Amino acid sequence: MTDTGSTSPQAVTAGIVVIGDEILSGRTKDTNTGYICEYLTQIGVEAREVRVVPDVTAMIVEAIDTLRGRYTYVFTTGGIGPTHDDITADAVASAYGVGIDVDPRAVEMLRRRYPDAELTPARLRMARIPHGADLIENAVSGAPGFRIDNVFVMAGVPRVMQSMMDTIGPTLKTGSRIWSETVDTGMPEGRIAEPLGRIAQAHPDVQIGSYPHYDGKGFNTQIVLRGRDAEKLQAAKSDVVAAVEELAQSE
Amino acid sequence: MTDTGSTSPQAVTAGIVVIGDEILSGRTKDTNTGYICEYLTQIGVEAREVRVVPDVTAMIVEAIDTLRGRYTYVFTTGGIGPTHDDITADAVASAYGVGIDVDPRAVEMLRRRYPDAELTPARLRMARIPHGADLIENAVSGAPGFRIDNVFVMAGVPRVMQSMMDTIGPTLKTGSRIWSETVDTGMPEGRIAEPLGRIAQAHPDVQIGSYPHYDGKGFNTQIVLRGRDAEKLQAAKSDVVAAVEELAQSE
Repeated sequence: MTDTGSTSPQAVTAGIVVIGDEILSGRTKDTNTGYICEYLTQIGVEAREVRVVPDVTAMIVEAIDTLRGRYTYVFTTGGIGPTHDDITADAVASAYGVGIDVDPRAVEMLRRRYPDAELTPARLRMARIPHGADLIENAVSGAPGFRIDNVFVMAGVPRVMQSMMDTIGPTLKTGSRIWSETVDTGMPEGRIAEPLGRIAQAHPDVQIGSYPHYDGKGFNTQIVLRGRDAEKLQAAKSDVVAAVEELAQSE
Repeated sequence: MTDTGSTSPQAVTAGIVVIGDEILSGRTKDTNTGYICEYLTQIGVEAREVRVVPDVTAMIVEAIDTLRGRYTYVFTTGGIGPTHDDITADAVASAYGVGIDVDPRAVEMLRRRYPDAELTPARLRMARIPHGADLIENAVSGAPGFRIDNVFVMAGVPRVMQSMMDTIGPTLKTGSRIWSETVDTGMPEGRIAEPLGRIAQAHPDVQIGSYPHYDGKGFNTQIVLRGRDAEKLQAAKSDVVAAVEELAQSE
């Protein structure tokens, strides 16, 4: 889309940190990023950057510290389970320079969920929460996530993360709704590129993206227009449709 | 996995930069990261960090500049097509402080591929290559990627990226092969966490990851062990299997 490098004043922005060696080894294919990005777009929050980092404290801290200063919100997934490699909560406490302990509110959530289970040290590890954080309920498996300042710490298991996102969503400040329109061109990107560049220049408030894909026989291109002003969006879309029709006729 | 924060001396490492607003809006679900991570693991290269950035020059430059200093290799996907929002090649030239022009070798590749097509300014945009870069052949659609220093610049269309990766793979210096073993525990993570922590401490050269998943009825956990020394890996695996059997019997 257009390279403005800037974000409109009413924009609410987000960074995402995905934590886990299993993503970087390729063993687990990350679906959380796509889910969160789509969720945020729908409520008018712009995801601006994603970082995937291993289970290494220094790298988790670096990613969270950088993104929390840049964006309205930061969302993390992964590393809050009961095992030795779950170090996200400690890394977040370290990023904020606060202590971390087993939190009685989190213990209560685990007790309600597993009334007959023994709260072993491993299970209690999931109740370790940085001082000053608010808990995020986990409707699926009990062990909560948490929010500290503008950072939301969620589980990595997609179903659990999604339930936490549904809890978080309504609490977020959201930007004005971003509208989008899609035009299917039926032609490779190279044919439409020049008129598209002119249209992008003529409509600075509309982001115009061009997405080629290979459909097994050849290249086709979708044009996606996005913007906060529905009228301006429609005007840009009309220009794209007209350009596509003109090109199709000249074939 | 274990939080050593360090990489063994013989390790060959990689950072990945995924470029494109369409990923951050959630419209396109990125599958390139998972593909590249799995590919690299198979040839003994460790992916250590991924960044997803928008079509904004400053952010592409920042990501490439940081990662190229940290890791043996950097792989980028996206932003090398013919349209106004394809700014990756210019961003890479800017990161390296070199010029960029239409490259006769790239033009020749496009001509061979499309002997009857007019090389419009848009198509020629795909032949803009930073000075000093080597080209990466594109078996699918002709327009090449390129390598400059330790940075490999690939297309975003998965099929094209995969064909470029197959060209790049054999040219890479690779680390010693990383072996892996998986143990299916049949129990939630909380039950296995404590013995697993002890086993991880007893086998410092083996990375032990614990991956819970929800199978529709309850939580199950896979333990994945990874290491460069096959004997040490088997020893750690035996300990995990023994611990799982003991826990299963005590049920």
